[in-house]
Amino acid sequence: MAGRMEIEGGAVDQLAGERSRAQFDVDAMKIVWAGSQHAFDVSDRISRLVASDPVFRKDDRTSLGRKDLFQNTLKKMTHALKRIVELRLTEEEGTKLRFFVDQPSYMDLHWGMFIPAIKGQGTEEQQEKWLPLAHKMQIIGCYAQTELGHGSNVQGLETTATFDPKMDEFIIHSPTLTSSKWWPGGLGKVSTHAVVYARLITGGQEHGIHGFIVQIRSLDDHSPLPGVTIGDIGTKFGSGAYNSMDNGVLRFSHVRIPRKQMLMRVCQVTREGNVLQSDVPKQLIYGTMVYVRQTIVSDASAALSKAVCIAVRYSAVRRQFGSQGGGPETQVIDYKTQQSRLFPLLASAYAFRFVGQWLKWLYTDVTQRLEAKDFSTLPEVHACTAGLKSLTTSVTADAIEECRKLCGGHGYLCSSGLPELFAVYVPACTYEGDNIVLLLQVARFLVKTVSQLGSGKQPVGTTAYMGRAEHLLQCTSSASSVEDWLKPSIILEAFEARAFRLAVACAQSISKFESPEAGFAEVSADLLEAAIAHCQLIVVSKFIEKLQEDIPGQGVKEQLRVLCYVYALHLLHKHLGDFLSTGCITPEQAALANEQLRSLYAQVRPNAVTLVDAFNYTDHFLGSALGRYDGNAYPALYAEAWKDPLNDSVVTDGYRDYIRPILKQTIFLSRL
Amino acid sequence: MAGRMEIEGGAVDQLAGERSRAQFDVDAMKIVWAGSQHAFDVSDRISRLVASDPVFRKDDRTSLGRKDLFQNTLKKMTHALKRIVELRLTEEEGTKLRFFVDQPSYMDLHWGMFIPAIKGQGTEEQQEKWLPLAHKMQIIGCYAQTELGHGSNVQGLETTATFDPKMDEFIIHSPTLTSSKWWPGGLGKVSTHAVVYARLITGGQEHGIHGFIVQIRSLDDHSPLPGVTIGDIGTKFGSGAYNSMDNGVLRFSHVRIPRKQMLMRVCQVTREGNVLQSDVPKQLIYGTMVYVRQTIVSDASAALSKAVCIAVRYSAVRRQFGSQGGGPETQVIDYKTQQSRLFPLLASAYAFRFVGQWLKWLYTDVTQRLEAKDFSTLPEVHACTAGLKSLTTSVTADAIEECRKLCGGHGYLCSSGLPELFAVYVPACTYEGDNIVLLLQVARFLVKTVSQLGSGKQPVGTTAYMGRAEHLLQCTSSASSVEDWLKPSIILEAFEARAFRLAVACAQSISKFESPEAGFAEVSADLLEAAIAHCQLIVVSKFIEKLQEDIPGQGVKEQLRVLCYVYALHLLHKHLGDFLSTGCITPEQAALANEQLRSLYAQVRPNAVTLVDAFNYTDHFLGSALGRYDGNAYPALYAEAWKDPLNDSVVTDGYRDYIRPILKQTIFLSRL
Ligand SMILES: Cc1cc2nc3c(=O)[nH]c(=O)nc-3n(C[C@H](O)[C@H](O)[C@H](O)COP(=O)(O)OP(=O)(O)OC[C@H]3O[C@@H](n4cnc5c(N)ncnc54)[C@H](O)[C@@H]3O)c2cc1C
Ligand SMILES: Cc1cc2nc3c(=O)[nH]c(=O)nc-3n(C[C@H](O)[C@H](O)[C@H](O)COP(=O)(O)OP(=O)(O)OC[C@H]3O[C@@H](n4cnc5c(N)ncnc54)[C@H](O)[C@@H]3O)c2cc1C
Ligand SMILES: [Ca+2]
Repeated sequence: MAGRMEIEGGAVDQLAGERSRAQFDVDAMKIVWAGSQHAFDVSDRISRLVASDPVFRKDDRTSLGRKDLFQNTLKKMTHALKRIVELRLTEEEGTKLRFFVDQPSYMDLHWGMFIPAIKGQGTEEQQEKWLPLAHKMQIIGCYAQTELGHGSNVQGLETTATFDPKMDEFIIHSPTLTSSKWWPGGLGKVSTHAVVYARLITGGQEHGIHGFIVQIRSLDDHSPLPGVTIGDIGTKFGSGAYNSMDNGVLRFSHVRIPRKQMLMRVCQVTREGNVLQSDVPKQLIYGTMVYVRQTIVSDASAALSKAVCIAVRYSAVRRQFGSQGGGPETQVIDYKTQQSRLFPLLASAYAFRFVGQWLKWLYTDVTQRLEAKDFSTLPEVHACTAGLKSLTTSVTADAIEECRKLCGGHGYLCSSGLPELFAVYVPACTYEGDNIVLLLQVARFLVKTVSQLGSGKQPVGTTAYMGRAEHLLQCTSSASSVEDWLKPSIILEAFEARAFRLAVACAQSISKFESPEAGFAEVSADLLEAAIAHCQLIVVSKFIEKLQEDIPGQGVKEQLRVLCYVYALHLLHKHLGDFLSTGCITPEQAALANEQLRSLYAQVRPNAVTLVDAFNYTDHFLGSALGRYDGNAYPALYAEAWKDPLNDSVVTDGYRDYIRPILKQTIFLSRL
Repeated sequence: MAGRMEIEGGAVDQLAGERSRAQFDVDAMKIVWAGSQHAFDVSDRISRLVASDPVFRKDDRTSLGRKDLFQNTLKKMTHALKRIVELRLTEEEGTKLRFFVDQPSYMDLHWGMFIPAIKGQGTEEQQEKWLPLAHKMQIIGCYAQTELGHGSNVQGLETTATFDPKMDEFIIHSPTLTSSKWWPGGLGKVSTHAVVYARLITGGQEHGIHGFIVQIRSLDDHSPLPGVTIGDIGTKFGSGAYNSMDNGVLRFSHVRIPRKQMLMRVCQVTREGNVLQSDVPKQLIYGTMVYVRQTIVSDASAALSKAVCIAVRYSAVRRQFGSQGGGPETQVIDYKTQQSRLFPLLASAYAFRFVGQWLKWLYTDVTQRLEAKDFSTLPEVHACTAGLKSLTTSVTADAIEECRKLCGGHGYLCSSGLPELFAVYVPACTYEGDNIVLLLQVARFLVKTVSQLGSGKQPVGTTAYMGRAEHLLQCTSSASSVEDWLKPSIILEAFEARAFRLAVACAQSISKFESPEAGFAEVSADLLEAAIAHCQLIVVSKFIEKLQEDIPGQGVKEQLRVLCYVYALHLLHKHLGDFLSTGCITPEQAALANEQLRSLYAQVRPNAVTLVDAFNYTDHFLGSALGRYDGNAYPALYAEAWKDPLNDSVVTDGYRDYIRPILKQTIFLSRL
């Protein structure tokens, strides 16, 4: 053991033994994880390209001050762009490249929010004018919605856009301190343009919130335009993390823009200042929303799988206690407590991956329906995507921190990769909809669905199960053995009954209050739980559906089946109060499920390291001394330490001024 | 509303309305929180002293690079020492001063670990030699136990201390890479000495792990002594946080120290190299352990109360949605979901404070017993303090992050204070015993206690309730109304029955395996839950005991009673699966408890802001734009933003090199 570790920086694969124990074809699993052979090929090629490019090194990120980190980001982005052009990468490849460069920057907002906003909300004419400029990056844009005083409540935004019919212009203005735009990424130091959301006023009348394309910096010398005040809003969580991003503050003092720069696809202001709704249905914006949320769920599985990959590999490397007669100590991954904390997260990474893949399908489906002007599934799709965004991001944030703790003290070092992964990930719980606000929207939809059941309206999509109301209210689980908990029908029924009964119980509680609104507000803490139960059911059922597909590769489907049951049964254990209080299962059945769960952990154990190998992450992308593919965690940690700027000198800079005067007692002379 | 916010930097108390609604005497509550009038006076005076000293400003911490932050720390510590001497502060006052300076540094380890190690493990002679040097800081020490390869398993440490009888010296050596000392705070760049834990070898025989005082740096020029390699282990979680600390790596190449530098209070090595146990009982070290854990619990309530203070105040300032007819929007603290997330944390802060105060008493009790050679309560005290360390630190870590989320997007800014509070706090879950390893120790003690119940041995202290085994196994809760859940006896019985039944169920499961050890390992995930249930019971019962004291001040006890029930009933809801599966309560009783909980939240609401005022934190100590006493969160956030180094220039530094070439398309020329 100690001997093996002597090989400093050695190339011996410390995890070879683990890999030889795997009971499935890891290459086949890689394709399943990637989604397709093509997706695998692209990711594999581009991730190696990034990893081998010295400009993209990440290991120095956390010791840089804010300014140096920001310079480093600008440099990387320019280099990324150069490489994309030089290598003539496709859009898919270019997006992947930025994904693997793995450093938040203005680029994310330019491509991910500014351009989609123009595509989604601009007229054809506007798209023709602005999109080519944006695609070539002759302008760089950001998405300026949130203000100091308003985020979740978009309708409360205070920035005004007042139409001046004389000049055929809008006057964009920040009337209060709280109306300052606050948070937009890329705004603080880079963007030349912004889509600004503001309160439309024409003829003295308010007409709600709309988007406007506003130039904010000169294209000549990059200085802010007259009437525009811009800055960065300061450091954020973590050392590197989102500090590479220039989230900004923006104030307008009566800034004029041409009328044509209001995004007018859905609503127009005429030359005379009249407000017209176009015949383009408002619902079209839902397409973009489904798309964005699908990428967030996919990012959740990426972040979670990174954390799990690090924690699984290090748990197989780390040995502590249990040495008998001088033999090697126990690998910490063999402790059942370690397994019960770690394996559900591994299963969740796969579960979120598959529900993310299903959301891609849902997006295609919704797009086709929207084109055919079929809006019937929209409310359900809205609730479903809101709920999945909330569920997967909340779980992932907590899971990254749990993975860090699973690595003991060393997880607290930035060289483990985990602190920065957490810091950069957690805002996903807040942006694109605060997770609690989103769950309340899901709950509202569920309560509505329950209330309409009597009226003969059939619930669709992910709420279809509610159509079996009678059965779900009275069924009792038939699980009577440990093996029964491996039956998809038994698992599904328990999750459906729990979700439905919680929703019905909420609806009943609400009806006891003077008004539905008052009731909804009063029981909203319970509503969150009902919404979560519904969302977990979706993930469980999509995982089960995945298992019904034809999945090639020796042993692959068997592994996925084990992970699926781990996912479901750990939830059953975690939320046991729900299942028992609604009478969906009995305490005896719960004990059987728990026993099955223990047995499933034992089945995951020999495959754990290979199951994270299937993510196919490069050591560069993982950025973790603990998570290295070859398991040489100790030499890597040791080598990383010496790179810290504090180690530039042997005797520390402050010695003469601050340490020597204490040791030599000269600072105390004043007392004598 | 918007108008109020216009007062940039104004001194208007935005929270005056909240404060006027409070139903209790905040000054009396401040004394309860502080523990005594004296403790309040000292904290109040010293915290203001620190807050008014410009050297101690904290607002620039997160934008500094590693080197600058470290310099800043050295400067603050030297200044702190100067002030302590100049003002002739007592030891209590000096400790408080460092607490309010609120920046981890070598001082913490010198005073908190190095000196106590010599006191606890050194002979009288050794104490006489080393303690005066350490107290005057003519030497600066650290505590070097953990190695790259071993933390939790201290018996596995690899550093050797081999006795050389010829020279009457020990040879300290690091035989492997993994034997490198790794983590000790203050080691990397400051300490001149270390207490090094190493494997004692004399006459070719191993004699376990012992502590040795080793000089590591020259007292003349601070360079590492021959044979000593030292460095910093690199950046850690967060931007400021523990990066102000020089956690270090240390390797020895056959370094010689006099025999007299082995800490020999309990075990001696003679001139001849013989190993003798002294007549000082080994158990004495438990006293120090109880002391250290008591401070950790006290730190937990400090960190949790800081986070809760910020989140409560900002939740009262923040308004979002719900404006009717142009009136002000709803304060987010009025949303029941916000309350159900936040108020249990407020209650936990008080609960941990009181259990921490009780631990101080326990420490005195244990010390007296040790002096009288009464070791009978030690195992129970050990389990109790291990469990409370684990419970309070885990809950606090999660709670800080929840408080951050409760602040929406703005909580992600360092100027909210919350990211750094989290980053600096979380290692408490790992150091001084990994929380899971500690819970397993608690579980082991519980299982043992259960197994001895038949033998007539009476369980003591916090396990005394297990003496009522028969009753606890068969009782059913008599709660039959919402009001019944305000009866301490009903709450206590439910928590006792739950804890006991879980422990008994584990003991029964274990007995089904071939050996107790195998059984313990197999069901260890369930054991964690039993241990947690036991620890929660301790906190609940100590809170209830507190309410039986005479507490002066109008309305104070009433508020504490409400918080106590919130604490207990939110746990009952959170762990409902435990209570139901063990048959301690019925689903109907759970529903009544939940209804009571809702009503309790409504009672907390008008007092929430004043309940956090009672912590008496200065704005300096809180370090949060969101948590300011006067509620002027928006002007403060706005002002903080402009201090970021990125705002030093209007046109950003990288513009010419990285942004202009994109906008002007010159980087693409190579393609043409
Ligand atoms: C890293 C990061 C990047 C961002 N990038 C951008 C960007 O590029 N462009 C942009 O425009 N914005 C951006 N944002 C802003 C982001 O969209 C908002 O922070 C987000 O919408 C949350 O809104 P909020 O901050 O107002 O939270 P708030 O709504 O103030 O939330 C505060 C608390 O109130 C609760 N709450 C609020 N309303 C209700 C309710 N009705 N019922 C119950 N509880 C409620 C919430 O649950 C939360 O606990 C970014 C934010 C971050 C952190
Ligand atoms: C900020 C910070 C400051 C520190 N300061 C000092 C210092 O000044 N001096 C010093 O000597 N040390 C210091 N340490 C080190 C600290 O004491 C150790 O990190 C701590 O003891 C945990 O041990 P570990 O890192 O070996 O964790 P490990 O034991 O390696 O834990 C890894 C995982 O294994 C699990 N595990 C381990 N054993 C078991 C078991 N028997 N059963 C089940 N699960 C198990 C754990 O739960 C965890 O999930 C510091 C650490 C930190 C983070
Ligand atoms: Ca930094």
